[in-house]
Amino acid sequence: MKHYTNINDLGNLQKAVQEAMELKKNPLQHKTLGEGKSICLLFFNNSLRTRLSTQKAAQNLGMNVIVMNFGSEGWELEFEDGVVMNQNKSEHIKEAAKVIAQYCDLVAIRAFASLTDKEKDKAEMVINSFKKYAGIPVVNMESATGHPLQALADAITMGEFKTAHKPKVVLSWAPHPKALPHAVANSFVEMMQLQKADFVITHPEGYELNPEITKNSTIEYDQKKAFENADFVYVKNWSSFKDYGKIMNTDSSWMITSEKMKLTNNAKFMHCLPVRRNVIVTDEVIDSENSIVIQQANNRTYSAQIVLKKILEHHE
Amino acid sequence: MKHYTNINDLGNLQKAVQEAMELKKNPLQHKTLGEGKSICLLFFNNSLRTRLSTQKAAQNLGMNVIVMNFGSEGWELEFEDGVVMNQNKSEHIKEAAKVIAQYCDLVAIRAFASLTDKEKDKAEMVINSFKKYAGIPVVNMESATGHPLQALADAITMGEFKTAHKPKVVLSWAPHPKALPHAVANSFVEMMQLQKADFVITHPEGYELNPEITKNSTIEYDQKKAFENADFVYVKNWSSFKDYGKIMNTDSSWMITSEKMKLTNNAKFMHCLPVRRNVIVTDEVIDSENSIVIQQANNRTYSAQIVLKKILEHHE
Amino acid sequence: MKHYTNINDLGNLQKAVQEAMELKKNPLQHKTLGEGKSICLLFFNNSLRTRLSTQKAAQNLGMNVIVMNFGSEGWELEFEDGVVMNQNKSEHIKEAAKVIAQYCDLVAIRAFASLTDKEKDKAEMVINSFKKYAGIPVVNMESATGHPLQALADAITMGEFKTAHKPKVVLSWAPHPKALPHAVANSFVEMMQLQKADFVITHPEGYELNPEITKNSTIEYDQKKAFENADFVYVKNWSSFKDYGKIMNTDSSWMITSEKMKLTNNAKFMHCLPVRRNVIVTDEVIDSENSIVIQQANNRTYSAQIVLKKILEHHE
Repeated sequence: MKHYTNINDLGNLQKAVQEAMELKKNPLQHKTLGEGKSICLLFFNNSLRTRLSTQKAAQNLGMNVIVMNFGSEGWELEFEDGVVMNQNKSEHIKEAAKVIAQYCDLVAIRAFASLTDKEKDKAEMVINSFKKYAGIPVVNMESATGHPLQALADAITMGEFKTAHKPKVVLSWAPHPKALPHAVANSFVEMMQLQKADFVITHPEGYELNPEITKNSTIEYDQKKAFENADFVYVKNWSSFKDYGKIMNTDSSWMITSEKMKLTNNAKFMHCLPVRRNVIVTDEVIDSENSIVIQQANNRTYSAQIVLKKILEHHE
Repeated sequence: MKHYTNINDLGNLQKAVQEAMELKKNPLQHKTLGEGKSICLLFFNNSLRTRLSTQKAAQNLGMNVIVMNFGSEGWELEFEDGVVMNQNKSEHIKEAAKVIAQYCDLVAIRAFASLTDKEKDKAEMVINSFKKYAGIPVVNMESATGHPLQALADAITMGEFKTAHKPKVVLSWAPHPKALPHAVANSFVEMMQLQKADFVITHPEGYELNPEITKNSTIEYDQKKAFENADFVYVKNWSSFKDYGKIMNTDSSWMITSEKMKLTNNAKFMHCLPVRRNVIVTDEVIDSENSIVIQQANNRTYSAQIVLKKILEHHE
Repeated sequence: MKHYTNINDLGNLQKAVQEAMELKKNPLQHKTLGEGKSICLLFFNNSLRTRLSTQKAAQNLGMNVIVMNFGSEGWELEFEDGVVMNQNKSEHIKEAAKVIAQYCDLVAIRAFASLTDKEKDKAEMVINSFKKYAGIPVVNMESATGHPLQALADAITMGEFKTAHKPKVVLSWAPHPKALPHAVANSFVEMMQLQKADFVITHPEGYELNPEITKNSTIEYDQKKAFENADFVYVKNWSSFKDYGKIMNTDSSWMITSEKMKLTNNAKFMHCLPVRRNVIVTDEVIDSENSIVIQQANNRTYSAQIVLKKILEHHE
């Protein structure tokens, strides 16, 4: 694997999930694989799970980790070609990406969606500029439109907890006071399309995700109907894609409650976190035995570690 | 030792001081003890000594160190139970603590007092929430009411410099332009209560520390009388406990001067730093041979290292 | 070498360049030299290349690296003697420098010019205070008046690319919308004064650098004339030294263009980066084959590594 910017970069998702589970049994089994190699973690946005788990994963492989918060420790970058750079932006991505590539063997990047310019967000300017100019492997730590490390952790978690051969998996929208990106939901959908599962997306009308991503996935506007017989309920808020970045609805009737969970086949509750309690989900549900959000967060380490391992092996 | 959130967690202070002194002779003697283990240093407030010395201590033990500034690199946490989280706080401590515990073997936390809500500060919400939810060892890098790593460094320093079997030790309040927490003073008092010493606290009336902490310790309102025959003068400002978080007095007559030091038994001058020169103490005193503030700061490394060592050994 | 705060600290520039080139062939050849040693990188200003390359260089030598952003993670320091510290500054450099020296074996510092107080900037208060008080080796990661790690990287780069025995090297001023420090230009001039070269400085009248630094170096106010037959064109903006920190001129006629480069002897284009495209230099020039800015940035690692190696060897 050269880069990891989309779940499809894995080639074989099921195999990667199996390998991650093996890795998890003994996380230090490849502790010299990354010796003498450095990964640079670049944050254009804040992070908790991604920051810690990716650093942990790299250290488990023996790599040196360099963390940089681009906003507070660096300066604004220019991404457009041909611009007269006499305003606020001090450096062009062409130089920044090429330069960073001089000091590390891999670069991992977090750069959220603007939620104001759909075309720019779809163009994935930051991630793609690094891929274009850096010349070293690029790992997506959540970009404008995807969060494939999260999706792989989700696949590992479902692999650990599934009992049915072909489980029913529901991706449910839930309300949130702020406009949130589509990245997690997009990557979850793309990952589910690679799985043997009965997959349903449920959300209020007007909250359709990018149809180029959802493709033929089933959409059910009746949340309760969607929950029937579900084995996994994966919850996430996102803002409107059509009316780009707007909040159309904060209807608390879409919150995940015990009553709704009773409609399921004793479903596991999943969320990528951070989660707003009693807005997205009631305390009762997230504190229940069926909630596997912490196990899901734990798998972020093995998701990152298997990705870094595959990249290191490819470049050996 | 499971956690280190209070000086009393050490069990035997004198033994810990002896062990730290042994460690100091060869700080790398246990350099593989922490191999393959990670400590996460979480800062909710800024730090110089604690940040560098704890990182150094962990590296001396062969641990991986992950540093995170929660304010600038993360987001606001909710600590109350049952809240509808539709305001500024993005994540509940329940998830945050459990999640962080997935990525490291120990967590060390700095979270200062609010100085506005006495009961909340006394409840030590941040430290205690991590103890309750994280399920991994928690180290206090200065909390609302205590700074036990500092107090242990103070004990080591007094152990190195004391000449009398039972020295006279004075904790003196001194003026400061800002309202400061009680944490350092509290932990110093608690530590002194475990020592063979003639211990006196001196401060203007109205600046009494929490009586649940000072207990039977002697309080002397006349600073000069307190200084008579002292072997150690430990200086610190704190805001009022009674009129919680308020500054009652910035009277420069309480500043530590050479004249006052002459009343002592050639006492050593101690301060946890940072210190405001010519407000807390004159240049003359802090620059004198009797000032041991730098040696005291140096012992922060061995204080942290013996604490981490004891925790690592307990969990082996 | 005890400290590295000026290019002249190297003693023999040519030898250092040769050693850095050797190092570059196998950067991990001294990977245990710094074992058990720590370097603290202190940033009073933001950084990209210096942050990453110095961290990489230290890791290549097996050192532990502690990074601290003094502004956002620490507090304001007082540098004046005898001050009553009852304002915004929480700690005096005397304590801060001595304390930091307790926790690491080397300290590297970035602290830019104020550009408002020429005498203070010339006094190099931050770097010199650390040299005075810390008692451990100090490395300059760009100070008020110099950037010797950059100058050494520049020397390495010219060593790699020069074809003539005595190349013609032009340092050209170019326009910039913000007032920039003199540090890079100063150190480049000082480095060139140690080289066998035909060295010319070109800038608009009024932009003379500190004459104590330029000494007898040739100054040519006609940029085109300066470019004639040049082998290297090193470009940099700086604000006025005479009318200290002021922008006298943003005349785009001083921008580096292909037309001007045609006047040279097929010169290599150099810049320390970050660079503002189409303000300092046209896209055409910086994207041309003669642009060696990325190779120059790459040499920042070997510049830092040879400096750290020499310091570590001196203190063995």
